[in-house]
Amino acid sequence: MVDSGAFERNLSTMAAVRPGTTLRPHVKAHKSTSLAAHQAARGHATFTCATPREVVGMAEAGVGTDLLLANETVDPVRLAAMAHAESATGAMVTVAIDSVETLDAARVAGIRHVLVDVNVGLPRCGIAPDRTADLAARAADAGLVVRGVMGYEGHLMAVKDRNDQRAKVLASMTTLVDCAHAVRRVVGDDASIVSAGGTGTFDLYDPVHSILGQINEVQAGSYALMDTHYGALSLPFEQALFVVGTVISRTIGSSEGSPSWAVVDIGLKSLGMDHGNPTIDGASVWFCSDEHTTFSPDDGAPVPHVGDRVFVRPAHVDPTVAMHTAMHVVDDARAGSDARVIEVWPVDLRGW
Amino acid sequence: MVDSGAFERNLSTMAAVRPGTTLRPHVKAHKSTSLAAHQAARGHATFTCATPREVVGMAEAGVGTDLLLANETVDPVRLAAMAHAESATGAMVTVAIDSVETLDAARVAGIRHVLVDVNVGLPRCGIAPDRTADLAARAADAGLVVRGVMGYEGHLMAVKDRNDQRAKVLASMTTLVDCAHAVRRVVGDDASIVSAGGTGTFDLYDPVHSILGQINEVQAGSYALMDTHYGALSLPFEQALFVVGTVISRTIGSSEGSPSWAVVDIGLKSLGMDHGNPTIDGASVWFCSDEHTTFSPDDGAPVPHVGDRVFVRPAHVDPTVAMHTAMHVVDDARAGSDARVIEVWPVDLRGW
Repeated sequence: MVDSGAFERNLSTMAAVRPGTTLRPHVKAHKSTSLAAHQAARGHATFTCATPREVVGMAEAGVGTDLLLANETVDPVRLAAMAHAESATGAMVTVAIDSVETLDAARVAGIRHVLVDVNVGLPRCGIAPDRTADLAARAADAGLVVRGVMGYEGHLMAVKDRNDQRAKVLASMTTLVDCAHAVRRVVGDDASIVSAGGTGTFDLYDPVHSILGQINEVQAGSYALMDTHYGALSLPFEQALFVVGTVISRTIGSSEGSPSWAVVDIGLKSLGMDHGNPTIDGASVWFCSDEHTTFSPDDGAPVPHVGDRVFVRPAHVDPTVAMHTAMHVVDDARAGSDARVIEVWPVDLRGW
Repeated sequence: MVDSGAFERNLSTMAAVRPGTTLRPHVKAHKSTSLAAHQAARGHATFTCATPREVVGMAEAGVGTDLLLANETVDPVRLAAMAHAESATGAMVTVAIDSVETLDAARVAGIRHVLVDVNVGLPRCGIAPDRTADLAARAADAGLVVRGVMGYEGHLMAVKDRNDQRAKVLASMTTLVDCAHAVRRVVGDDASIVSAGGTGTFDLYDPVHSILGQINEVQAGSYALMDTHYGALSLPFEQALFVVGTVISRTIGSSEGSPSWAVVDIGLKSLGMDHGNPTIDGASVWFCSDEHTTFSPDDGAPVPHVGDRVFVRPAHVDPTVAMHTAMHVVDDARAGSDARVIEVWPVDLRGW
């Protein structure tokens, strides 16, 4: 369930700070072309994807004119599907490369545009900074259009002290900007993209800062729906996503001091669990099972009854949404069971 | 990917200890009617389900003649769908109840058979033992057929010391057996089912033991495919399930002592994470992202190359399988990339 008001406010807040193409919204956080269409309506025409399926689905839905696979793949079938989506729909498709292998796989499959993915400190994908220009030169020699660089400082998204975070982001982005200039020296100034960041750092790329101002697009996704993990930071975005369950069992302690609890039919198969247990307002979550969450109300509040609806806040939005087939947008989540469904967004970009 | 040999050996091992209806295989662990058909071929005609969708899907596929929803629901649409599945297919459908509300919802929807779910120590669903007979009497008065009792001692599945586990299971099952007799006294001896347990306790219900011998069916599911969580116990079942990924990036430390790692395209959206990180043989898993797992080979072994296949062992099989649309059965997983796909099992019982 998506609270319409919180969602719209999140989109407004972000668009004010990162308007137009200075934000490249990440669709991995919601996997829904319907939700992405709302982001496009706010002026964002460029999108970030984590899977070929997300790229192809966005292109086929006609949402976004410039789609980036901010991830590596050597899968010839999926690369060819993305290349085909570009020629069939006119949406520009760009894929990240960080090695000769990913470059060659993209070229052979008919991909035309690439971004060089640079390791800016997160031990995951991304080429070593000192090899970036060489890979860009190889890509250009192979006939690919090198659009610039990206570097995801994912290890800095949840740094709680903002000054500490800003200093670390500046160090990472100094590396990325250096790489951007090195790439331009070898393939030309059209390689203008310098793409980075996420929800946790969205407002740190001060446009007038000599380095940070050169980050010309931010790949934020979670800001639209949020979760309790990002919610623990001091970000100006509201929790807009809930998994709504029904109480299926309750146990009332038979004597003073013996425990009481309720069970809601939301569990490990409806919640991304890598950031830990979900949250229920006014209650303590005990544990989750495949199809259950056991919880007890705080401070002696009454235990919900069988049949009562419970709003569960996931700890991590991206894997949670990926477990569901649709999001139901309501006018006002605070109305509880009286909330009215005003839109249904299929989660149509699941799979790979 | 499922290793055929390990899977078949797991089924043989289980069927030798719990033959026929003494096992009620739990389909929540695999959500596949094709896999369940293999269990049925081993002589198990009764199945356990966690969701109405699993019950309806099994009935429609004609797998199993006796399907138990070992879970509570008050959803009138889903209850009616299960009642309809029974009349349309002839498979007997039984649902667990643990309250007047779940009893009433089942009756109103046309459900004919129920099992009273008893709390045997896991703080989740299940009625208090001293109220079991009363609920059974109410169900019988309402015209429902009470088939017996169930009680899931899920809190005892992973007790590592087997003697300690046996003692605790005996205590829980003493409660359940007492309830079974109380129920028979009020509704008659046809209420013969005493259903409990899981993979972690499958062999503890000694048929000649005065109490444990009265547990006449075990609800085990994970034994068929296994995971690293259950694999850490001393159970005679083998890991048969892997998520197969492809290396999409590698970083080789530029100097002595600087780290090297590889990234495989399996992450939080392909792995149940509630039991922690997955495992890769011969390697250390660093962390998982939405679509990535970063890892490094142990003991100076070479870092895999981009394009190499990697077998990832999930920590928890149930939520992992629920993220995928199909399982590919291979003749011999040890053959690595040369393994031959001999069967494809759709994961056709996803959703609710």
